[in-house]
Amino acid sequence: MISPRVELAREKLTENELQGFIVSDRQNIRWLTGFTGSSGVALLTCDSVHLFTDSRYTIQASQEAPGAVVHISSEPPIKQVAEKVSTLGCEAVGFESTVVTVEEYRQLEDGAADVRLVGLAQALSPLRAVKDTEEIERLRKACEITDAAFSAIQPFLKPGTKELDILRELVYILTGLGAEKESFDSIVASGPRSALPHAHPTDRILAAGEPVLLDFGAQYQGYAGDITRTLFLGSATDEFRKVYQTVLDAQMAAIAAIRPGVPGKDVDEVARKIITDAGYGNSFGHGLGHQLGLSVHDGPALSPKSDIVLLEGMVVTVEPGIYIEGWGGVRIEDDVLVGRCGAEVLTVSQKSLTELAV
Amino acid sequence: MISPRVELAREKLTENELQGFIVSDRQNIRWLTGFTGSSGVALLTCDSVHLFTDSRYTIQASQEAPGAVVHISSEPPIKQVAEKVSTLGCEAVGFESTVVTVEEYRQLEDGAADVRLVGLAQALSPLRAVKDTEEIERLRKACEITDAAFSAIQPFLKPGTKELDILRELVYILTGLGAEKESFDSIVASGPRSALPHAHPTDRILAAGEPVLLDFGAQYQGYAGDITRTLFLGSATDEFRKVYQTVLDAQMAAIAAIRPGVPGKDVDEVARKIITDAGYGNSFGHGLGHQLGLSVHDGPALSPKSDIVLLEGMVVTVEPGIYIEGWGGVRIEDDVLVGRCGAEVLTVSQKSLTELAV
Repeated sequence: MISPRVELAREKLTENELQGFIVSDRQNIRWLTGFTGSSGVALLTCDSVHLFTDSRYTIQASQEAPGAVVHISSEPPIKQVAEKVSTLGCEAVGFESTVVTVEEYRQLEDGAADVRLVGLAQALSPLRAVKDTEEIERLRKACEITDAAFSAIQPFLKPGTKELDILRELVYILTGLGAEKESFDSIVASGPRSALPHAHPTDRILAAGEPVLLDFGAQYQGYAGDITRTLFLGSATDEFRKVYQTVLDAQMAAIAAIRPGVPGKDVDEVARKIITDAGYGNSFGHGLGHQLGLSVHDGPALSPKSDIVLLEGMVVTVEPGIYIEGWGGVRIEDDVLVGRCGAEVLTVSQKSLTELAV
Repeated sequence: MISPRVELAREKLTENELQGFIVSDRQNIRWLTGFTGSSGVALLTCDSVHLFTDSRYTIQASQEAPGAVVHISSEPPIKQVAEKVSTLGCEAVGFESTVVTVEEYRQLEDGAADVRLVGLAQALSPLRAVKDTEEIERLRKACEITDAAFSAIQPFLKPGTKELDILRELVYILTGLGAEKESFDSIVASGPRSALPHAHPTDRILAAGEPVLLDFGAQYQGYAGDITRTLFLGSATDEFRKVYQTVLDAQMAAIAAIRPGVPGKDVDEVARKIITDAGYGNSFGHGLGHQLGLSVHDGPALSPKSDIVLLEGMVVTVEPGIYIEGWGGVRIEDDVLVGRCGAEVLTVSQKSLTELAV
């Protein structure tokens, strides 16, 4: 039986009048063939799927990618695939121009001099954007574990604890709940560090009277959950309350605006307008959200520059934030499945302002 | 004060008659500027270092990269740098051809049409290969934590335990000992799964009378430790003993062959010959070892195809293995600093055959 994903991807061959498509992106290879190794290239033709890797993966490749013809060699995969498309006598072959490096391209040209190489940017992204039933189940489970971990980590959020120690407990909790691992490097940012949207946890010790921001997710069967919550240690100040409520209003309004057919940039604008109207427009420097799937950043989704139109079956994050240097930041993020009639929020952790006892 | 790394890198400009060098590789950016963000591009010129990133990193970039002029924009970093080299009136600018994608190259060409772009493969690798004092201290500490974690995980290696539960404890132990995180996705492979050189941990439950292979490392201040040990649950079989001793002999002989001036492929050959003479030549499918540093695979080192000549100050792994499908595998790996007179082994965990009580 031919996998529906392979069938979908083959439409790209017809569309672009190609006899083959070289897949280099790791997540695309996994999506198409099932192979999870760290080194390999796949080739899709109109009647077969080939997987080129090395002897570290001899056994794993045939187990994980039963639908592919596995080729093992000590030659770099890109050289193997160049030789194959040349041998097959392909006239025109696509490759992923946002993944293949200039040096790999040179090797492709060398090895397949008689083949016309056609760079396609993100050809598989639209296919991966709409999740199938198996993917949605995995994402649901990833979000379920993520929520449970958020609940279980709260007793560790107290003055005197190091950010790095919270990270340590968080990872232990995630994997204890069935996550393979963190879906990305978790963020634990306390006090003024919460103003750094992508803060690595440090030795900084949490103190009463300041916020702590957690941004993390479970990876489950390859799929990424992703949640952010910002809590306050003790009684929140008036300014924190105002910032928090603004972010929350923006987030909830954006979620309410999600449905199939709506442009991603319109959803961003819903949130951005609320934040701008409250006077914090310059403090929300990133996009509202990204797609979620095998990668935590599975593609663009909700941002001023996005040209994505939401489709049923997409899964996106909704994560507005306000960041004030020296003072701190607030971000609230949920994962949302675009359902036929609107958003289904997959992460369900409490998001009304939480003031932790200190 | 100009950092010695920037001074070293500037020699590449002179060597290649360039007015600038665009650095896209994340670890190269960190090595050169200190910036650890996930998105950014650096530009080295003869009198300045520029760092292009986005507003998520406004604060972090100036903190981490005080020697660089930081540019924040919502434009992709590659477009920012293209504009800069054009504005600066550079005649010829280098870029990393093994990192820059075909699509990024197109954007460079578009934005800097008047600049000659010169692809350099791995230009900074030879500079990064020889570690400075700070790097060696960090690697020492990474290896020290790695050794301590290996010791602490052993009580969990017993029949009835899941591979994934061992992984969970291992990560908790590593971070408790001061690691930022695993330096790569740890391998825990039991029984026949030890024949998969890059096995992800699974739900498989350890049983008496079989091997368990651990391959993991601590990341400390960005630097990677990397160790492998293969232990036996109960009394080792004769075949296991023979395979184990062969791998151990090969590993120790290879370490003894390490000193400045020796070609990496000769060290590989020392190990490979011992394994081949014992009749397992076809069961050792990978190279003997790689360089270690900010990346766990910090560059090639010891393999039949390597053209590296060992230099004082390099740090490499030495990790021969024998893998027999359906039966299992043995790999033994240490991290080695190339010292003036020979190898200094940085990982010191016991490597004589360990038979765990069951």
